[in-house]
Amino acid sequence: MKELDLISTLESLDGPGRVLRGDDCGELAWTASSLLASTDMLIDGVHFLSHIHSPEQIARKSLGVNVSDVAAMAGTPQAVLISLALNRDDPPGFAEAFIRSFSIFCNQAQIVLLGGDTNFTSSKTAISVTILGTPHPKGSLKRSGACVGDSIFVSGPLGGSLRSDRHLSPPNRTKLAQTLGDSGGVRSMIDLSDGLATDLRHILKASKCGAIVYADKIPLHSDALNLESAFIDGEDYELLFTACPTFQNQFSKLHCIEIGVITHQENSFFISNPDGTSKECTLNGFEHG
Amino acid sequence: MKELDLISTLESLDGPGRVLRGDDCGELAWTASSLLASTDMLIDGVHFLSHIHSPEQIARKSLGVNVSDVAAMAGTPQAVLISLALNRDDPPGFAEAFIRSFSIFCNQAQIVLLGGDTNFTSSKTAISVTILGTPHPKGSLKRSGACVGDSIFVSGPLGGSLRSDRHLSPPNRTKLAQTLGDSGGVRSMIDLSDGLATDLRHILKASKCGAIVYADKIPLHSDALNLESAFIDGEDYELLFTACPTFQNQFSKLHCIEIGVITHQENSFFISNPDGTSKECTLNGFEHG
Repeated sequence: MKELDLISTLESLDGPGRVLRGDDCGELAWTASSLLASTDMLIDGVHFLSHIHSPEQIARKSLGVNVSDVAAMAGTPQAVLISLALNRDDPPGFAEAFIRSFSIFCNQAQIVLLGGDTNFTSSKTAISVTILGTPHPKGSLKRSGACVGDSIFVSGPLGGSLRSDRHLSPPNRTKLAQTLGDSGGVRSMIDLSDGLATDLRHILKASKCGAIVYADKIPLHSDALNLESAFIDGEDYELLFTACPTFQNQFSKLHCIEIGVITHQENSFFISNPDGTSKECTLNGFEHG
Repeated sequence: MKELDLISTLESLDGPGRVLRGDDCGELAWTASSLLASTDMLIDGVHFLSHIHSPEQIARKSLGVNVSDVAAMAGTPQAVLISLALNRDDPPGFAEAFIRSFSIFCNQAQIVLLGGDTNFTSSKTAISVTILGTPHPKGSLKRSGACVGDSIFVSGPLGGSLRSDRHLSPPNRTKLAQTLGDSGGVRSMIDLSDGLATDLRHILKASKCGAIVYADKIPLHSDALNLESAFIDGEDYELLFTACPTFQNQFSKLHCIEIGVITHQENSFFISNPDGTSKECTLNGFEHG
Protein backbone atom coordinates (compact mmCIF):
# COMPACT_ATOMS: atom_id res chain seq x y z
CA MET A 1 0.00 0.00 0.00
CA LYS A 2 1.38 3.38 -0.97
CA GLU A 3 1.10 6.47 1.15
CA LEU A 4 -1.75 7.80 -0.94
CA ASP A 5 -3.66 4.60 -0.41
CA LEU A 6 -3.19 4.93 3.33
CA ILE A 7 -4.75 8.38 3.18
CA SER A 8 -7.64 7.05 1.07
CA THR A 9 -8.19 4.21 3.51
CA LEU A 10 -8.23 6.62 6.40
CA GLU A 11 -10.60 9.02 4.69
CA SER A 12 -13.04 6.26 3.85
CA LEU A 13 -13.10 5.32 7.52
CA ASP A 14 -13.45 8.75 9.03
CA GLY A 15 -16.25 9.58 11.35
CA PRO A 16 -17.33 13.19 11.66
CA GLY A 17 -13.98 14.88 11.83
CA ARG A 18 -12.32 18.18 12.45
CA VAL A 19 -9.26 17.15 10.57
CA LEU A 20 -7.71 18.51 7.43
CA ARG A 21 -5.75 15.77 5.73
CA GLY A 22 -4.19 15.11 2.35
CA ASP A 23 -1.95 18.13 2.85
CA ASP A 24 1.59 18.23 4.13
CA CYS A 25 0.19 18.58 7.65
CA GLY A 26 -3.05 17.74 9.34
CA GLU A 27 -4.71 20.69 11.05
CA LEU A 28 -6.68 20.44 14.25
CA ALA A 29 -8.61 23.05 16.23
CA TRP A 30 -7.05 23.55 19.67
CA THR A 31 -8.75 25.51 22.44
CA ALA A 32 -6.74 24.38 25.47
CA SER A 33 -3.92 26.62 26.62
CA SER A 34 -1.38 23.82 26.43
CA LEU A 35 -0.94 20.39 24.92
CA LEU A 36 0.36 17.04 26.08
CA ALA A 37 2.37 14.97 23.64
CA SER A 38 4.06 11.60 23.77
CA THR A 39 5.51 9.13 21.32
CA ASP A 40 5.94 5.37 21.56
CA MET A 41 7.38 2.97 19.04
CA LEU A 42 6.42 -0.71 18.86
CA ILE A 43 8.69 -3.15 17.06
CA ASP A 44 7.96 -6.63 15.78
CA GLY A 45 9.75 -9.19 17.92
CA VAL A 46 10.04 -6.80 20.85
CA HIS A 47 6.57 -5.41 21.58
CA PHE A 48 4.50 -7.81 19.48
CA LEU A 49 4.96 -10.85 17.24
CA SER A 50 3.54 -10.33 13.76
CA HIS A 51 3.56 -14.07 12.98
CA ILE A 52 1.35 -14.74 16.02
CA HIS A 53 -0.62 -11.62 16.82
CA SER A 54 -3.37 -10.30 14.57
CA PRO A 55 -3.28 -6.85 12.94
CA GLU A 56 -6.20 -5.92 15.21
CA GLN A 57 -4.25 -6.91 18.33
CA ILE A 58 -1.19 -4.98 17.22
CA ALA A 59 -3.30 -1.94 16.33
CA ARG A 60 -5.04 -2.03 19.71
CA LYS A 61 -1.72 -2.11 21.54
CA SER A 62 -0.17 0.62 19.36
CA LEU A 63 -2.96 3.01 20.26
CA GLY A 64 -3.45 1.75 23.82
CA VAL A 65 0.08 2.31 25.09
CA ASN A 66 -0.06 5.90 23.87
CA VAL A 67 -3.49 6.56 25.34
CA SER A 68 -2.05 5.26 28.59
CA ASP A 69 0.67 7.92 28.54
CA VAL A 70 -1.89 10.72 28.32
CA ALA A 71 -4.08 9.13 30.99
CA ALA A 72 -1.02 8.90 33.25
CA MET A 73 -1.06 12.69 33.42
CA ALA A 74 -4.86 12.88 33.79
CA GLY A 75 -5.12 14.33 30.28
CA THR A 76 -7.62 13.64 27.50
CA PRO A 77 -6.31 12.09 24.28
CA GLN A 78 -7.32 14.16 21.25
CA ALA A 79 -5.30 13.11 18.22
CA VAL A 80 -2.65 10.68 17.00
CA LEU A 81 -0.21 10.47 14.14
CA ILE A 82 1.22 7.16 13.02
CA SER A 83 4.29 6.28 10.99
CA LEU A 84 4.88 2.76 9.81
CA ALA A 85 7.87 0.79 8.61
CA LEU A 86 6.08 -2.24 7.27
CA ASN A 87 7.86 -5.44 6.38
CA ARG A 88 7.42 -6.36 2.73
CA ASP A 89 7.05 -10.01 3.75
CA ASP A 90 4.08 -9.46 6.04
CA PRO A 91 1.06 -11.45 4.85
CA PRO A 92 -1.04 -9.76 2.14
CA GLY A 93 -3.63 -7.52 3.70
CA PHE A 94 -1.71 -7.07 6.94
CA ALA A 95 -1.00 -3.38 6.37
CA GLU A 96 -4.54 -2.51 5.40
CA ALA A 97 -6.09 -4.57 8.21
CA PHE A 98 -3.76 -2.89 10.67
CA ILE A 99 -4.57 0.61 9.48
CA ARG A 100 -8.29 -0.11 9.35
CA SER A 101 -8.27 -1.45 12.90
CA PHE A 102 -6.14 1.42 14.15
CA SER A 103 -8.53 3.91 12.63
CA ILE A 104 -11.57 2.16 14.09
CA PHE A 105 -10.02 2.10 17.57
CA CYS A 106 -9.27 5.83 17.21
CA ASN A 107 -12.89 6.55 16.30
CA GLN A 108 -14.13 4.48 19.23
CA ALA A 109 -11.92 6.44 21.60
CA GLN A 110 -12.89 9.75 19.94
CA ILE A 111 -9.32 10.35 18.91
CA VAL A 112 -8.62 12.10 15.60
CA LEU A 113 -6.20 10.28 13.30
CA LEU A 114 -4.38 13.38 12.20
CA GLY A 115 -1.65 12.08 9.94
CA GLY A 116 0.39 9.14 8.83
CA ASP A 117 3.40 7.95 6.90
CA THR A 118 3.90 4.46 5.49
CA ASN A 119 7.12 2.84 4.33
CA PHE A 120 7.88 -0.69 3.22
CA THR A 121 11.20 -2.22 4.21
CA SER A 122 13.05 -5.49 4.49
CA SER A 123 13.38 -4.95 8.25
CA LYS A 124 10.95 -5.92 10.94
CA THR A 125 7.77 -3.88 11.17
CA ALA A 126 8.06 -0.80 13.36
CA ILE A 127 5.07 1.30 14.38
CA SER A 128 5.53 4.77 15.78
CA VAL A 129 2.54 6.55 17.26
CA THR A 130 2.53 10.11 18.55
CA ILE A 131 -0.40 11.17 20.69
CA LEU A 132 -1.64 14.66 21.50
CA GLY A 133 -3.88 15.40 24.43
CA THR A 134 -5.40 18.23 26.39
CA PRO A 135 -4.27 18.56 30.00
CA HIS A 136 -6.56 18.22 32.99
CA PRO A 137 -8.14 21.61 33.86
CA LYS A 138 -6.57 21.45 37.33
CA GLY A 139 -3.13 20.76 35.84
CA SER A 140 -1.26 17.65 34.77
CA LEU A 141 -0.38 14.98 37.30
CA LYS A 142 3.36 14.45 37.20
CA ARG A 143 5.84 12.03 38.62
CA SER A 144 7.39 14.69 40.76
CA GLY A 145 4.56 15.55 43.13
CA ALA A 146 4.69 12.73 45.70
CA CYS A 147 4.87 13.87 49.36
CA VAL A 148 6.05 12.06 52.49
CA GLY A 149 3.05 10.30 54.03
CA ASP A 150 1.18 9.94 50.71
CA SER A 151 -0.58 6.64 50.22
CA ILE A 152 0.47 4.71 47.11
CA PHE A 153 -2.32 3.32 44.93
CA VAL A 154 -2.68 1.15 41.84
CA SER A 155 -5.78 1.06 39.66
CA GLY A 156 -5.92 -2.68 39.07
CA PRO A 157 -4.26 -6.09 39.40
CA LEU A 158 -0.69 -6.56 38.25
CA GLY A 159 1.57 -9.19 36.72
CA GLY A 160 1.64 -11.75 33.94
CA SER A 161 0.57 -9.49 31.08
CA LEU A 162 2.98 -11.17 28.67
CA ARG A 163 1.91 -14.71 29.55
CA SER A 164 -1.69 -14.01 28.59
CA ASP A 165 -1.34 -11.56 25.70
CA ARG A 166 -3.05 -9.07 28.01
CA HIS A 167 -0.18 -6.69 27.14
CA LEU A 168 -1.83 -6.35 23.72
CA SER A 169 -4.97 -4.73 25.08
CA PRO A 170 -4.02 -2.06 27.60
CA PRO A 171 -6.99 -0.91 29.67
CA ASN A 172 -8.15 2.60 28.84
CA ARG A 173 -7.81 4.47 32.14
CA THR A 174 -8.60 7.90 30.71
CA LYS A 175 -11.87 8.39 32.60
CA LEU A 176 -10.51 7.10 35.88
CA ALA A 177 -7.48 9.35 35.54
CA GLN A 178 -9.70 12.36 34.93
CA THR A 179 -11.75 11.51 38.00
CA LEU A 180 -8.53 11.25 39.99
CA GLY A 181 -7.50 14.64 38.64
CA ASP A 182 -10.91 16.09 39.55
CA SER A 183 -10.52 14.88 43.13
CA GLY A 184 -7.63 17.21 43.84
CA GLY A 185 -6.11 14.54 46.06
CA VAL A 186 -3.59 12.95 43.72
CA ARG A 187 -0.07 14.27 43.99
CA SER A 188 1.88 12.15 41.50
CA MET A 189 1.02 9.63 38.81
CA ILE A 190 2.56 7.35 36.19
CA ASP A 191 1.30 4.42 34.15
CA LEU A 192 2.63 0.94 34.86
CA SER A 193 4.38 0.09 31.62
CA ASP A 194 7.71 -1.15 32.94
CA GLY A 195 6.49 -2.83 36.13
CA LEU A 196 5.94 -1.61 39.65
CA ALA A 197 9.63 -1.91 40.57
CA THR A 198 10.78 0.44 37.82
CA ASP A 199 7.79 2.76 37.61
CA LEU A 200 7.57 3.44 41.34
CA ARG A 201 11.29 4.27 41.23
CA HIS A 202 10.51 6.87 38.57
CA ILE A 203 8.14 8.56 41.02
CA LEU A 204 10.62 8.28 43.90
CA LYS A 205 13.42 9.76 41.83
CA ALA A 206 11.32 12.62 40.42
CA SER A 207 9.79 13.35 43.83
CA LYS A 208 13.01 12.88 45.82
CA CYS A 209 11.44 10.50 48.31
CA GLY A 210 11.21 6.81 49.26
CA ALA A 211 8.51 4.17 49.60
CA ILE A 212 7.39 1.17 51.59
CA VAL A 213 5.17 -1.22 49.67
CA TYR A 214 3.08 -3.81 51.56
CA ALA A 215 3.61 -7.22 49.96
CA ASP A 216 0.19 -8.51 51.00
CA LYS A 217 -1.67 -5.50 49.62
CA ILE A 218 -0.44 -5.76 46.06
CA PRO A 219 -3.31 -7.00 43.85
CA LEU A 220 -2.03 -9.91 41.78
CA HIS A 221 -3.60 -10.52 38.42
CA SER A 222 -4.76 -14.10 37.80
CA ASP A 223 -2.13 -14.20 35.03
CA ALA A 224 0.68 -13.47 37.51
CA LEU A 225 2.98 -16.33 38.45
CA ASN A 226 3.86 -14.87 41.84
CA LEU A 227 4.38 -11.62 43.75
CA GLU A 228 7.58 -10.90 41.86
CA SER A 229 5.55 -10.80 38.63
CA ALA A 230 3.72 -7.73 39.85
CA PHE A 231 7.01 -5.93 40.33
CA ILE A 232 8.85 -6.94 37.19
CA ASP A 233 6.55 -8.12 34.40
CA GLY A 234 5.42 -4.69 33.23
CA GLU A 235 2.90 -3.80 30.54
CA ASP A 236 -0.07 -3.77 32.92
CA TYR A 237 -0.90 -0.19 31.91
CA GLU A 238 -2.69 0.42 35.18
CA LEU A 239 -2.21 3.76 36.94
CA LEU A 240 0.24 4.07 39.82
CA PHE A 241 -0.31 7.19 41.91
CA THR A 242 0.25 8.74 45.28
CA ALA A 243 -2.34 10.71 47.18
CA CYS A 244 -3.14 12.34 50.45
CA PRO A 245 -4.24 9.42 52.75
CA THR A 246 -7.60 11.07 53.47
CA PHE A 247 -8.70 10.14 49.96
CA GLN A 248 -8.42 6.41 50.61
CA ASN A 249 -12.16 5.78 50.91
CA GLN A 250 -12.95 7.82 47.83
CA PHE A 251 -10.35 6.00 45.72
CA SER A 252 -11.35 2.57 47.04
CA LYS A 253 -14.78 3.19 45.55
CA LEU A 254 -13.02 3.69 42.20
CA HIS A 255 -11.48 0.20 42.69
CA CYS A 256 -8.05 1.63 43.37
CA ILE A 257 -5.96 -0.33 45.85
CA GLU A 258 -3.68 1.19 48.47
CA ILE A 259 -0.36 -0.68 48.37
CA GLY A 260 2.09 1.43 50.34
CA VAL A 261 3.28 4.75 51.69
CA ILE A 262 5.74 7.42 50.63
CA THR A 263 8.68 7.86 53.00
CA HIS A 264 11.29 10.47 53.62
CA GLN A 265 14.53 8.79 52.57
CA GLU A 266 15.33 9.59 48.94
CA ASN A 267 15.16 6.59 46.59
CA SER A 268 14.74 4.13 49.45
CA PHE A 269 12.32 1.39 48.36
CA PHE A 270 11.29 -1.33 50.83
CA ILE A 271 8.88 -4.21 50.60
CA SER A 272 7.19 -4.91 53.91
CA ASN A 273 5.78 -8.33 54.83
CA PRO A 274 2.77 -9.07 57.04
CA ASP A 275 5.07 -10.59 59.68
CA GLY A 276 6.68 -7.21 60.19
CA THR A 277 9.91 -7.98 58.35
CA SER A 278 10.92 -5.88 55.38
CA LYS A 279 13.63 -5.90 52.75
CA GLU A 280 14.94 -3.50 50.18
CA CYS A 281 13.42 -3.95 46.73
CA THR A 282 16.20 -5.02 44.41
CA LEU A 283 13.90 -6.08 41.58
CA ASN A 284 13.98 -4.40 38.22
CA GLY A 285 11.06 -4.04 35.90
CA PHE A 286 10.74 -5.03 32.31
CA GLU A 287 13.18 -3.61 29.77
CA HIS A 288 12.11 -4.01 26.19
CA GLY A 289 14.63 -5.47 23.84
CA MET B 1 21.69 4.01 25.37
CA LYS B 2 18.52 3.40 27.35
CA GLU B 3 15.47 5.60 27.22
CA LEU B 4 16.41 7.32 30.45
CA ASP B 5 19.78 8.18 29.03
CA LEU B 6 18.12 9.74 26.02
CA ILE B 7 16.14 11.97 28.33
CA SER B 8 19.26 12.88 30.29
CA THR B 9 21.11 13.67 27.09
CA LEU B 10 18.28 15.87 25.93
CA GLU B 11 18.00 17.66 29.24
CA SER B 12 21.69 18.40 29.34
CA LEU B 13 21.36 19.99 25.91
CA ASP B 14 18.26 22.06 26.47
CA GLY B 15 18.26 25.73 25.90
CA PRO B 16 15.77 27.84 27.78
CA GLY B 17 12.69 25.70 27.42
CA ARG B 18 9.00 25.63 28.00
CA VAL B 19 8.95 21.89 28.04
CA LEU B 20 7.99 19.49 30.78
CA ARG B 21 9.80 16.23 30.20
CA GLY B 22 10.62 13.13 32.15
CA ASP B 23 6.90 12.45 32.57
CA ASP B 24 4.70 10.22 30.46
CA CYS B 25 4.01 13.20 28.20
CA GLY B 26 5.76 16.43 27.41
CA GLU B 27 3.63 19.52 27.99
CA LEU B 28 3.80 22.64 25.87
CA ALA B 29 1.98 25.97 26.13
CA TRP B 30 -0.24 26.54 23.09
CA THR B 31 -1.87 29.88 22.31
CA ALA B 32 -2.86 29.39 18.66
CA SER B 33 -6.43 28.32 17.96
CA SER B 34 -5.31 25.32 15.96
CA LEU B 35 -2.24 23.19 15.37
CA LEU B 36 -0.49 21.68 12.38
CA ALA B 37 0.98 18.21 12.74
CA SER B 38 2.87 15.89 10.45
CA THR B 39 4.95 12.76 10.80
CA ASP B 40 7.73 11.39 8.62
CA MET B 41 9.77 8.24 9.05
CA LEU B 42 13.30 7.83 7.69
CA ILE B 43 14.75 4.37 7.25
CA ASP B 44 18.34 3.29 6.80
CA GLY B 45 18.90 2.10 3.25
CA VAL B 46 15.89 4.03 1.96
CA HIS B 47 16.22 7.64 3.10
CA PHE B 48 19.84 7.59 4.27
CA LEU B 49 22.79 5.21 4.46
CA SER B 50 24.13 4.81 7.98
CA HIS B 51 27.42 3.29 6.78
CA ILE B 52 28.10 6.38 4.65
CA HIS B 53 26.26 9.32 6.15
CA SER B 54 27.21 10.85 9.48
CA PRO B 55 24.86 11.02 12.47
CA GLU B 56 24.82 14.80 11.96
CA GLN B 57 23.71 14.45 8.34
CA ILE B 58 20.99 11.98 9.26
CA ALA B 59 19.80 14.18 12.12
CA ARG B 60 19.68 17.23 9.85
CA LYS B 61 17.57 15.40 7.30
CA SER B 62 15.25 13.89 9.96
CA LEU B 63 14.38 17.33 11.25
CA GLY B 64 14.54 19.10 7.90
CA VAL B 65 11.97 16.99 6.04
CA ASN B 66 9.50 17.58 8.85
CA VAL B 67 10.16 21.33 9.03
CA SER B 68 9.52 21.36 5.29
CA ASP B 69 6.04 19.90 5.79
CA VAL B 70 5.06 22.71 8.14
CA ALA B 71 6.60 25.34 5.86
CA ALA B 72 4.59 23.87 2.96
CA MET B 73 1.46 25.13 4.70
CA ALA B 74 3.04 28.49 5.66
CA GLY B 75 3.09 27.42 9.31
CA THR B 76 5.71 27.88 12.01
CA PRO B 77 7.35 24.76 13.49
CA GLN B 78 7.08 24.72 17.28
CA ALA B 79 7.90 21.25 18.61
CA VAL B 80 8.98 17.77 17.60
CA LEU B 81 8.85 14.30 19.08
CA ILE B 82 11.20 11.59 17.92
CA SER B 83 11.05 7.81 18.19
CA LEU B 84 14.01 5.70 17.24
CA ALA B 85 14.55 2.08 16.33
CA LEU B 86 18.32 1.97 16.47
CA ASN B 87 20.34 -0.89 15.08
CA ARG B 88 22.44 -2.59 17.73
CA ASP B 89 25.27 -2.89 15.21
CA ASP B 90 25.55 0.82 14.53
CA PRO B 91 29.01 2.12 15.46
CA PRO B 92 29.51 3.01 19.14
CA GLY B 93 28.44 6.57 19.77
CA PHE B 94 26.14 6.72 16.76
CA ALA B 95 22.96 6.97 18.83
CA GLU B 96 24.28 9.65 21.12
CA ALA B 97 25.82 11.67 18.29
CA PHE B 98 22.56 11.48 16.41
CA ILE B 99 20.46 12.62 19.36
CA ARG B 100 22.90 15.38 20.23
CA SER B 101 22.88 16.69 16.68
CA PHE B 102 19.12 16.43 16.43
CA SER B 103 18.72 18.39 19.64
CA ILE B 104 21.17 21.07 18.53
CA PHE B 105 19.38 21.50 15.19
CA CYS B 106 16.10 21.83 17.09
CA ASN B 107 17.55 24.55 19.29
CA GLN B 108 18.94 26.39 16.28
CA ALA B 109 15.52 26.34 14.62
CA GLN B 110 13.81 27.33 17.90
CA ILE B 111 11.89 24.07 17.94
CA VAL B 112 11.14 22.38 21.27
CA LEU B 113 12.18 18.74 21.50
CA LEU B 114 9.08 17.64 23.38
CA GLY B 115 9.52 13.90 23.72
CA GLY B 116 11.29 10.80 22.56
CA ASP B 117 11.40 7.02 22.61
CA THR B 118 14.43 4.87 21.90
CA ASN B 119 14.56 1.19 21.05
CA PHE B 120 17.43 -1.04 19.99
CA THR B 121 16.76 -3.73 17.40
CA SER B 122 18.44 -6.09 14.98
CA SER B 123 16.66 -4.33 12.10
CA LYS B 124 17.81 -1.32 10.17
CA THR B 125 17.61 2.00 11.96
CA ALA B 126 14.26 3.77 11.61
CA ILE B 127 13.71 7.35 12.74
CA SER B 128 10.21 8.70 13.15
CA VAL B 129 9.75 12.41 13.75
CA THR B 130 6.44 14.12 14.45
CA ILE B 131 6.35 17.88 14.14
CA LEU B 132 3.84 20.35 15.57
CA GLY B 133 3.42 23.85 14.22
CA THR B 134 1.23 26.91 14.49
CA PRO B 135 -0.71 27.85 11.36
CA HIS B 136 -0.25 31.09 9.47
CA PRO B 137 -2.51 33.82 10.91
CA LYS B 138 -4.23 34.19 7.53
CA GLY B 139 -4.85 30.45 7.35
CA SER B 140 -2.90 27.47 6.11
CA LEU B 141 -1.93 27.18 2.47
CA LYS B 142 -3.28 23.91 1.13
CA ARG B 143 -2.95 21.85 -1.98
CA SER B 144 -6.55 22.43 -2.88
CA GLY B 145 -6.61 26.18 -3.53
CA ALA B 146 -5.17 26.48 -7.06
CA CYS B 147 -7.33 28.49 -9.51
CA VAL B 148 -7.41 28.52 -13.32
CA GLY B 149 -4.98 31.20 -14.52
CA ASP B 150 -2.75 30.98 -11.43
CA SER B 151 0.96 31.17 -12.10
CA ILE B 152 2.98 28.21 -10.84
CA PHE B 153 6.15 29.01 -8.90
CA VAL B 154 9.06 27.13 -7.35
CA SER B 155 11.31 28.56 -4.65
CA GLY B 156 14.63 27.27 -5.99
CA PRO B 157 16.48 25.05 -8.45
CA LEU B 158 15.49 21.42 -8.83
CA GLY B 159 17.01 18.03 -9.58
CA GLY B 160 19.92 15.84 -8.58
CA SER B 161 19.49 15.98 -4.82
CA LEU B 162 20.44 12.33 -4.42
CA ARG B 163 23.59 12.59 -6.54
CA SER B 164 25.05 15.26 -4.31
CA ASP B 165 23.80 14.30 -0.84
CA ARG B 166 21.86 17.56 -0.99
CA HIS B 167 18.80 15.51 0.03
CA LEU B 168 20.41 15.29 3.48
CA SER B 169 20.18 19.01 4.14
CA PRO B 170 16.75 20.27 3.13
CA PRO B 171 16.62 24.07 2.89
CA ASN B 172 14.57 25.67 5.65
CA ARG B 173 11.87 27.57 3.77
CA THR B 174 9.88 28.54 6.87
CA LYS B 175 10.49 32.29 6.57
CA LEU B 176 9.86 32.40 2.84
CA ALA B 177 6.66 30.41 3.30
CA GLN B 178 5.47 32.83 5.96
CA THR B 179 6.20 35.78 3.66
CA LEU B 180 4.24 34.05 0.92
CA GLY B 181 1.38 33.57 3.37
CA ASP B 182 1.58 37.24 4.41
CA SER B 183 1.25 38.32 0.77
CA GLY B 184 -2.28 37.00 0.45
CA GLY B 185 -1.52 36.04 -3.14
CA VAL B 186 -0.71 32.35 -2.78
CA ARG B 187 -3.61 30.01 -3.42
CA SER B 188 -2.03 26.55 -3.05
CA MET B 189 1.29 25.19 -1.83
CA ILE B 190 3.21 21.95 -1.30
CA ASP B 191 6.85 21.08 -0.70
CA LEU B 192 8.82 19.29 -3.40
CA SER B 193 9.65 16.01 -1.69
CA ASP B 194 8.64 13.57 -4.42
CA GLY B 195 9.63 15.61 -7.48
CA LEU B 196 7.80 18.18 -9.58
CA ALA B 197 5.96 15.52 -11.61
CA THR B 198 4.33 13.94 -8.55
CA ASP B 199 3.96 16.97 -6.32
CA LEU B 200 2.36 19.20 -8.97
CA ARG B 201 -0.10 16.36 -9.61
CA HIS B 202 -1.02 16.47 -5.90
CA ILE B 203 -2.01 20.12 -6.34
CA LEU B 204 -3.87 19.42 -9.58
CA LYS B 205 -5.80 16.55 -8.04
CA ALA B 206 -6.68 18.43 -4.85
CA SER B 207 -7.59 21.59 -6.78
CA LYS B 208 -9.40 19.81 -9.64
CA CYS B 209 -7.45 21.60 -12.36
CA GLY B 210 -4.62 21.13 -14.85
CA ALA B 211 -1.25 22.71 -15.60
CA ILE B 212 1.12 23.70 -18.38
CA VAL B 213 4.75 23.85 -17.30
CA TYR B 214 7.29 25.70 -19.48
CA ALA B 215 10.30 23.47 -20.02
CA ASP B 216 12.70 26.37 -20.46
CA LYS B 217 11.59 28.12 -17.27
CA ILE B 218 12.31 25.29 -14.86
CA PRO B 219 15.39 26.18 -12.79
CA LEU B 220 17.78 23.24 -12.94
CA HIS B 221 20.10 22.68 -10.02
CA SER B 222 23.77 22.25 -10.92
CA ASP B 223 23.43 18.71 -9.53
CA ALA B 224 20.69 17.85 -12.04
CA LEU B 225 21.62 15.57 -14.94
CA ASN B 226 18.95 16.97 -17.25
CA LEU B 227 15.46 18.45 -17.36
CA GLU B 228 13.90 15.13 -16.45
CA SER B 229 15.80 15.22 -13.14
CA ALA B 230 13.81 18.25 -12.07
CA PHE B 231 10.59 16.33 -12.58
CA ILE B 232 11.49 12.97 -11.07
CA ASP B 233 14.44 13.12 -8.68
CA GLY B 234 12.57 14.52 -5.70
CA GLU B 235 13.89 15.54 -2.28
CA ASP B 236 14.57 19.13 -3.31
CA TYR B 237 12.37 20.39 -0.46
CA GLU B 238 11.72 23.65 -2.27
CA LEU B 239 8.23 25.13 -2.21
CA LEU B 240 5.88 24.63 -5.16
CA PHE B 241 2.96 27.04 -5.16
CA THR B 242 0.37 28.71 -7.31
CA ALA B 243 -0.57 32.35 -7.08
CA CYS B 244 -2.52 35.10 -8.70
CA PRO B 245 -0.32 36.24 -11.67
CA THR B 246 -0.26 39.85 -10.42
CA PHE B 247 2.12 38.75 -7.68
CA GLN B 248 4.82 37.71 -10.13
CA ASN B 249 7.07 40.72 -9.54
CA GLN B 250 6.74 40.47 -5.78
CA PHE B 251 7.62 36.77 -5.75
CA SER B 252 10.49 37.19 -8.23
CA LYS B 253 12.11 39.47 -5.66
CA LEU B 254 11.90 36.53 -3.23
CA HIS B 255 13.85 34.46 -5.80
CA CYS B 256 10.80 32.41 -6.71
CA ILE B 257 10.62 31.33 -10.32
CA GLU B 258 7.45 31.19 -12.41
CA ILE B 259 7.39 27.89 -14.27
CA GLY B 260 3.88 27.50 -15.60
CA VAL B 261 0.18 28.19 -15.42
CA ILE B 262 -2.89 26.46 -14.00
CA THR B 263 -5.41 25.36 -16.64
CA HIS B 264 -9.01 24.34 -16.65
CA GLN B 265 -8.88 20.66 -17.60
CA GLU B 266 -8.80 18.46 -14.51
CA ASN B 267 -5.54 16.52 -14.01
CA SER B 268 -4.20 17.53 -17.43
CA PHE B 269 -0.45 18.15 -17.15
CA PHE B 270 1.50 19.37 -20.19
CA ILE B 271 5.11 20.36 -20.68
CA SER B 272 5.46 23.16 -23.19
CA ASN B 273 8.66 23.75 -25.20
CA PRO B 274 10.03 27.08 -26.44
CA ASP B 275 9.33 26.04 -30.07
CA GLY B 276 5.61 25.98 -29.30
CA THR B 277 5.24 22.21 -29.17
CA SER B 278 3.97 20.53 -26.04
CA LYS B 279 3.49 17.03 -24.73
CA GLU B 280 1.71 15.43 -21.86
CA CYS B 281 3.88 14.84 -18.80
CA THR B 282 4.12 11.09 -18.30
CA LEU B 283 6.98 11.27 -15.81
CA ASN B 284 6.59 10.06 -12.25
CA GLY B 285 8.45 11.40 -9.29
CA PHE B 286 10.53 9.60 -6.77
CA GLU B 287 8.97 6.81 -4.75
CA HIS B 288 10.93 5.82 -1.68
CA GLY B 289 11.61 2.16 -1.26
